[in-house]
Amino acid sequence: MTTVIRIDDPADPRLDDYRDLNHSDTRPDLPGGKGLVIAEGSLVIPRLVQSRFPVRSIVGFEPKLSGLLETLGEVDVPVYEVTREVLAKVAGFDMHRGLVAAADRAPEMTVDEVIAGASTLCILEGVGDHENIGSIFRNAAGLGVDGVLFGASCADPLYRRVVRVSMGHVLRLPFAHMEGKTTNWQHGLARLQEAGFQVIALTPNPTAANLQDVIDPTRKTAILVGAEGPGLTEHAMRATDVRARIPMQPGTDSLNVATAAAIGFYEALRHH
Amino acid sequence: MTTVIRIDDPADPRLDDYRDLNHSDTRPDLPGGKGLVIAEGSLVIPRLVQSRFPVRSIVGFEPKLSGLLETLGEVDVPVYEVTREVLAKVAGFDMHRGLVAAADRAPEMTVDEVIAGASTLCILEGVGDHENIGSIFRNAAGLGVDGVLFGASCADPLYRRVVRVSMGHVLRLPFAHMEGKTTNWQHGLARLQEAGFQVIALTPNPTAANLQDVIDPTRKTAILVGAEGPGLTEHAMRATDVRARIPMQPGTDSLNVATAAAIGFYEALRHH
Repeated sequence: MTTVIRIDDPADPRLDDYRDLNHSDTRPDLPGGKGLVIAEGSLVIPRLVQSRFPVRSIVGFEPKLSGLLETLGEVDVPVYEVTREVLAKVAGFDMHRGLVAAADRAPEMTVDEVIAGASTLCILEGVGDHENIGSIFRNAAGLGVDGVLFGASCADPLYRRVVRVSMGHVLRLPFAHMEGKTTNWQHGLARLQEAGFQVIALTPNPTAANLQDVIDPTRKTAILVGAEGPGLTEHAMRATDVRARIPMQPGTDSLNVATAAAIGFYEALRHH
Repeated sequence: MTTVIRIDDPADPRLDDYRDLNHSDTRPDLPGGKGLVIAEGSLVIPRLVQSRFPVRSIVGFEPKLSGLLETLGEVDVPVYEVTREVLAKVAGFDMHRGLVAAADRAPEMTVDEVIAGASTLCILEGVGDHENIGSIFRNAAGLGVDGVLFGASCADPLYRRVVRVSMGHVLRLPFAHMEGKTTNWQHGLARLQEAGFQVIALTPNPTAANLQDVIDPTRKTAILVGAEGPGLTEHAMRATDVRARIPMQPGTDSLNVATAAAIGFYEALRHH
């Protein structure tokens, strides 16, 4: 049986990993600060426990905590039972899900490690919105993409909101950051091409080829997407094999980046 | 030239349409209350002005207001210039977009009117989340769906958040509510079939047919989606022509409903 320790004092230092979860400067998931990985709820915490990220503790209130422990079986980490009120005081808001866990960041995988096992990849450039990154991981996991590579100017994939929106898939799916922070990161795309990937840039540009016509089923597929609005840089698009568009109605806006990526993943899956 | 009236008093009744925009009980877009349509920003307000919804006024602060009026040309509605501080006091929060407009609800279209001009439709059941409804309208507009029909238990499509997330497309795309609030709304699906539509239920059920194999290009397409989690009711699915799934990886979660719908729309578009 996992031992559960009851904590009634919101100031108890054993709860420090969960203190001020929304505070912009001191939140525990800030990479410059503690840099923890925070997972919430009965769906995501089991994914954290099964992941490569070393869990530090699990906190929750009854009866949700007992339910989680039944799902998890024996776990070798401290488990703290608190009341809803105590957890709200620690986190700085009411955590109605009633379950939260903290883990250390695992050493990041290398680009070569992510490439090695993959037949479909997603590459992001300039995606600064945590919710979009979370949705992309969720869509990637659901639609069979094997990993995510980050080009320049993307938000932190281990931010709490990303973990939540991804339904924990950011903890499962391999990812890595490509080298070169600004204008030269795209040189790394050549490595994907050497590894047998067709690198496809998704763009709303109506002169680009139709996505469904460009995917080469004899090669592995890497789909590159950029932020809504500015889209991909010309530097990045030049380093790809082909520019492709999802056919859109004139006079409408481009799709949300996570939705466009999902359609890209779906097409890649359809061709393989 | 459109006349712009400057208002410096946050209590001025001419600003009442924008008062307490986030207040759960008195917000002006509540159907039981004023039931107004609220549009924000330089992209969405022009779509409201071009829509069937009668605009009551436009409010903004400089220089955004002048920019909007240049885009709009002559408009025959009251235009009020306020400071950012005054607008924040009226709305109850800082409206950093600096532009907001209010309109009356137009009489809702009938189901037959929505069907009449459409070759692709989306039908929703149990979609209670405003953000999902907004995303579905945005995706529908972008991917060439001609209208949206609401079955039972959906959230209000003219809520402020829906207008914003849809990028204003909820104001442009025809929509209507089908009759029957609970278990019998799906009888109306027969009317779509009589009108030449193949009605396809999207489901994560792995025993359903693969979406790409079921679409009949000789018929019009109606795609029925339900809420994440519970999904479509059995009553609704029985009233469709076919149940179809998007191929998903085992052990992952079903896609977000707006993303699943987007893939459905994309497939419909591909077949027509």
